[in-house]
Parts: sequence; C-alpha cells; structure tokens
Amino acid sequence: MRTSGKVLIAQGGGPTAVINQSLVGVVLESRKFPHISKVYGALKGVRGIINEDFVDLTLETTHNLESVATTPSSALLSTRDKPDMNYCKDIVSVLKAHEIRYFFYIGGNDSSDTVRLVNEFARHSEYNLRTIHIPKTIDNDLVCNDHTPGYGSAARFVAEAFIGANLDNRALPGIYIGIVMGRHAGFLTAAASLAKKYPDDGPHLIYLPERIFRIEKFLDDVHETYNRYGRCVIAVSEGICDENGTPIAVKMSENVEKDQHGNVQLSGSAMLGDLLSNLIKSKLGLQRVRSDTFGYLQRSFPSCISDVDQHEAREAGEKAAHFGIWNDYDCSVAIQRIGNYSVDYKPVALEQIAAKTRLMPDDFINQEGNNITSSFLMYCRPLIGSGFMQAHRLNAPKVEKILRK
Amino acid sequence: MRTSGKVLIAQGGGPTAVINQSLVGVVLESRKFPHISKVYGALKGVRGIINEDFVDLTLETTHNLESVATTPSSALLSTRDKPDMNYCKDIVSVLKAHEIRYFFYIGGNDSSDTVRLVNEFARHSEYNLRTIHIPKTIDNDLVCNDHTPGYGSAARFVAEAFIGANLDNRALPGIYIGIVMGRHAGFLTAAASLAKKYPDDGPHLIYLPERIFRIEKFLDDVHETYNRYGRCVIAVSEGICDENGTPIAVKMSENVEKDQHGNVQLSGSAMLGDLLSNLIKSKLGLQRVRSDTFGYLQRSFPSCISDVDQHEAREAGEKAAHFGIWNDYDCSVAIQRIGNYSVDYKPVALEQIAAKTRLMPDDFINQEGNNITSSFLMYCRPLIGSGFMQAHRLNAPKVEKILRK
Repeated sequence: MRTSGKVLIAQGGGPTAVINQSLVGVVLESRKFPHISKVYGALKGVRGIINEDFVDLTLETTHNLESVATTPSSALLSTRDKPDMNYCKDIVSVLKAHEIRYFFYIGGNDSSDTVRLVNEFARHSEYNLRTIHIPKTIDNDLVCNDHTPGYGSAARFVAEAFIGANLDNRALPGIYIGIVMGRHAGFLTAAASLAKKYPDDGPHLIYLPERIFRIEKFLDDVHETYNRYGRCVIAVSEGICDENGTPIAVKMSENVEKDQHGNVQLSGSAMLGDLLSNLIKSKLGLQRVRSDTFGYLQRSFPSCISDVDQHEAREAGEKAAHFGIWNDYDCSVAIQRIGNYSVDYKPVALEQIAAKTRLMPDDFINQEGNNITSSFLMYCRPLIGSGFMQAHRLNAPKVEKILRK
Repeated sequence: MRTSGKVLIAQGGGPTAVINQSLVGVVLESRKFPHISKVYGALKGVRGIINEDFVDLTLETTHNLESVATTPSSALLSTRDKPDMNYCKDIVSVLKAHEIRYFFYIGGNDSSDTVRLVNEFARHSEYNLRTIHIPKTIDNDLVCNDHTPGYGSAARFVAEAFIGANLDNRALPGIYIGIVMGRHAGFLTAAASLAKKYPDDGPHLIYLPERIFRIEKFLDDVHETYNRYGRCVIAVSEGICDENGTPIAVKMSENVEKDQHGNVQLSGSAMLGDLLSNLIKSKLGLQRVRSDTFGYLQRSFPSCISDVDQHEAREAGEKAAHFGIWNDYDCSVAIQRIGNYSVDYKPVALEQIAAKTRLMPDDFINQEGNNITSSFLMYCRPLIGSGFMQAHRLNAPKVEKILRK
C-alpha cells in the first residue's frame, strides 16, 4: 500500500553542471502522484533540513523548473556538513513534523552515507520513510555505477580545455601543464585524452592519482616528449602522490620551505602547477613552461555541458521518484551501461555504495603509468555527448624554397 | 593598374579563438582575383618568412579551409619574434624572391609595427608591395578600433566562467577570485560583469589595470561585500599595479621573500590569485577563500566562441584582401561601431596604429575604481554574440516552519 505524504529533496556537496536536471526530474515526476501532497526543497542541503528552510516546489512553474534544469550548480544551494547520528536524528524529527515520507538527496559518496544514516534512524524509530540517494559527482568515483551524472560534462570541459591548450602550444611551442580536479580518482584527468586527434597532439602525458608519481620518471617523460615533438602538453591530477601516499603538492612545498628556511604560506589551489613548472625549468633547463589549474571552472561551466549527461541526470531523478514512490524502495540510483551506448538505472542498496570510493580500473591506465589506454577512450567518449568539437589543420603542400635551397 | 603577383599571409603573437576566420577570409577572397597567381601561408609568423617555410594555400580545399576557420589558435602557427630593421630587410628579400606583392599579417600591436617596418623597407628599396595588418587580440587594446577580433570570444569565456563561479559560490558561500588576462588593458577582466543577472550576483568587485590597486582598499571592499552578501566573487586583472606602477604580483611576492628571508622561486602564472587569497585569509580571517587563474583557457576554448566575433574576424580578413588587392592600400583594417549594433571596416594608416596601446576609457570604470559602469555593459554585450547562457533560480515560496517557529 502506498504511503501518502510529502516529498523532500535536497542537494549536497560540490556542484555539477547537471545537478539541477536530477532535481527537476524528481520534482516533475513526484508531482504526478496523487498521494504526494507536497514537494518540498530544502535550502543548503541537510543544513536546511535541520533549520526547516524549505521551499514549496509544488508551487514552482514548469517553465522555470525547466530553465533551472539547464543551469549549473545546486539551485537549492548546498552544504559541506557531514551529519553524524545525532544530526540524522534531528533530520528525522523535522521530517516527521512536516509529514515527509519521501526523502531524496542528490550528492556524492558522503551524501549517500547521510541517506543511509537517515534511513537507519527512521527505521529504528519506526517512522515510515523512503530514502533515496541520487548520485552526482564530477569525480566519477561512486562504486556500483558505470559513471555518475556530472562527470560527462566536467570531462567535456577538460577535453575541450586540452584541445585549446594543445592548439595554443602547437602554435607557440613549449611545455604546458593542466592541473585537473580529482583527489583520489583519475577519471576527470584522464578525460584530457579525448582532446587528441592528430598523432602528435597533446596531451602527451597524463598523470593519475592511481599511480605513484615519481619526480625523476616525470622529468624523463617530459624530456623525451620534448625531444620528439619540440613541445609537451601534460595533464596532471591534483591528487598525485608519492610512494608514501603524500600528495606531491605537499611534498614539494615542504621541500621548498625546508630548503629555504622560510615559512611561506602558499597553499593555494594553483601551487602544484607552479611547482611542477619550476621543476621542469630548473632541472631540464626548458623555457616557456606554463601551467593552468582548471579549478572551479571545470565543474559548472555553462556552455560546456554534455547532452548525454543532462539526459541521464534527468532520468536518474525520474527513476529515483519511481523507485521511492512507486516501488517503495530505499536505495541509491545506479547507472549501468548497456552495449555501446545505452544505460539503465538500477536500485542499489545504500550500504553498498555509501562512503566508498571507486578508482580507475587498471586496464584504463597504460603500463608506464603516464597515459591512458584505448579502453578508457571507448569508455569515456559516449559520456561527453554530441557536438564535441574537432580541431582541424591546414593540409596545403609545402612551397619550394628559393633563397635557402 | 593592378599589380600581378603572389599573396603571403602569416599569423603572429598569441592565439585567439577566431584568428583562423581572418586567415580564411583573406585566402578565399584573394583566390578570386585573376591577377593573384598564388596564395601562400608562412608557417610560424615572420620567422617562417625568413626561413621560407611557406605552404601553398591555393591548393587547400575550401571545405578544409572552412573547418580550419572554426578551429581556435593560429593554423599557420605563430612566433613571438619582434623584427628589427635588419629582420625586415630579410623579409623583403624573401618576398622579392618569391614575387610576393601582397603581404597580410594577422596580429596585435607588435605585429602591426612589423607590417609598418616591412612596408617602409619595401618602399625604401622601391619594391612594389602592399602590406596589410589584420587586427587580432583578446586584450582589445588596439587604438583606432572599437574592438578587435578575438576579444568577443575571450570575453564570452570570461563571462561564462564567472556565471559558473558565481553559481558555485552562491551554493557554497565564500570568497572567489578569478584572475583574468590583460597586462595593461582591463577590457577582458571587465567582461566578467556580463555574468551578473540577479542583483546579488557576482562578480561583486572588478579590479582593472587602469586603476591603482591599493591593498587596504581592496580588503575594505571585500569585507563590505562579504558583510552584505555572506560571500564575494571578485574579478582581478593579472596586470594590476600599485601607485608606482609595480605589478601587485611582483610587489607581494617580494614582500613574502623579504619577510621570510627566503629565496622562493614561485613566479608561476597563478601566483597573484594565491597571494590575494592568503591576504584575505590572514587579514580578514575569512575561510573558504578560493582563486582560479583562467590562464590559457580563455584565449582558445573551442566551445565558447562568439558568433559575432567569428563573423567580424572573417570580414576583417575579406576586407583586408579588398583593401590590398582591389584598392591598393597599405593599411590596418579597423573595426568601427555603427549604432547598436553593426560595424564597418576602415583602412587606417599603419603608423596610426603600430605599437600603441588602448586602455579602458574612464566612463567604463566606476568612481571607486572597483567595478565597471553600464556604459561598459552596453559596449561589451553585442560582442559576445548570440546564445549567451542565462542562469535561472528557483522561485518557489517558503514553507512555514513547524519546530522552529
């Protein structure tokens, strides 16, 4: 028998370009069920639940919902709060007070753990509550999922950024380093590989957190690439670590401090790129070494959104509503790949997904640990969507020299 | 009487997203004239002329030219060489040897000075040569031009980046600093202002190289904005200087070195953002201060190109061919604005434009020197082209609290 009551939706963690597609998927679908009395949104994630900061999405126009769906970054705002058991107890008290019977939380693996805790506590206190986690993360690091909503669009940004960087570097040769988000999983950094079209295109080297980063090997790789092409374009994950698991950014900045007896506070996000650039300049003696840290640009850039990612994020929201309201499940919505290329959405038990991290599988990374394999290209290409730009080169014949024959 | 002979085209300086539109404009138009025997392209700018590294663009397919036109960054590759009188003498020798009678150079103000020197030397040696400069620069700093090809697309990137950054910062509040290219002219940084839609949207503060940057005033501005909105999004030009004309990046890193008695080599491009972030953290005690340096992403990002910019870059190339081959002019092609909004292309004497820098006019900058005026918005909006993304917010009513009434 179906439980009558209200729906509550919230968004947690860092934004993605398509996180509002999932929100709108849940809202529009939930509004169709006659036994759903209201559809609420909590402002600022779980923090907004505790504070009872709700908006009534039953009274939101369909046109505006569709406009919000195409806007990057959590429309309900977000939080970095990681609720403990007491926090979850308070959440359930608020849900009870408002007669909320369906709780949807759109977020990464921390959020899925919150959903699991809320579910446990509701069951414990015999409050009939359906709890559904809807995945989102540009890091693509959720287990049980082929990939996660938000990744395809961020991957498209990274790939396009490297198309531009490679063209730029080809016109004015030198060394270019692009630092990409992803502390533990290298999926987003690996997407740089989609920028390659011609055999000598960059990125020529890709360093992922799944492999130990050895400075000597890195310098050898750069040197070799530079000797071959007269230039070198490199994708580096912000999360690369040494053999002890120490992030390279921390390790190198410590070295700087120790060597110089200074106490420099330069822990900005762009430090790793500068440190690696300086390393190449000083150790290899190369000029024109540049680095960019893609930073926040890559997770909510408006005009660089994968249509495949948009549609899947929307469907994940819709399926969440089906699973919770129609099927009476407590679950996370997992994306599974079918053939090349379609997807299906499966309900997965919350404890299977909560607070776990998926890394790049070994067959996506080359033997040397400085690039990806064609398996990764096959995996990633459908996710970045249609209309992906191709770079074109002139193909005109050389003219015979006259003075310098 | 029209001079028969060959056409030579080259591209100089940093790339833009539409620099190949101008190239293709010249090529396709030049190929229509019966007295033009060949259309050559020099590889790597003026360096390729000295080396006689030419490709025969008469033998390039129209389809491939049109594909190259939509590809960012100099398809003929580029150079940072700044030719002196002897270099220009060598250029003219090569042009003579190949019977090149029309020389087109697509570039910024350094390139226009090269064209002027080549023109002078050809005249001096009584070699009949038409020399035409076609403007390109994301900095938008050429005199005699309302704006320059390349600016509109880079401005669109900056505006979109700030739409995303503002949405991100609204969902997870804090301080966000975006560092934008432009050493002397603030046009590109000012384009961040186009990201604002709702009254509380960022960027809340914009710092341009046309105004002296005072650290105390900056901190006051940030503090005030943070108190008002609980967050602050800031656009900063990489070229901001103190009252002595010393770049802030240099000044602050010197302070760090002096204070700490260290000798840190951290002159990476991302330093200014990190320095300003640390300043805000230490002086205002604010948390969650982040900075991004847009770096190379902003000048050749494939999917963020203004259609207006594309069409104008193409037309500037076509008009260059008309001016040189049809009208027998030596000139630079200047874009002039007509009404709101159309443009016309005028031939301007090379000495009028060469090696001069245009800055933001005073009426584009607010009294306080920490933002732009509506005059700038009116100026810039048409240049970023059609289909510019708008962010949308939820507009649902608040729900009454029950527990926390």
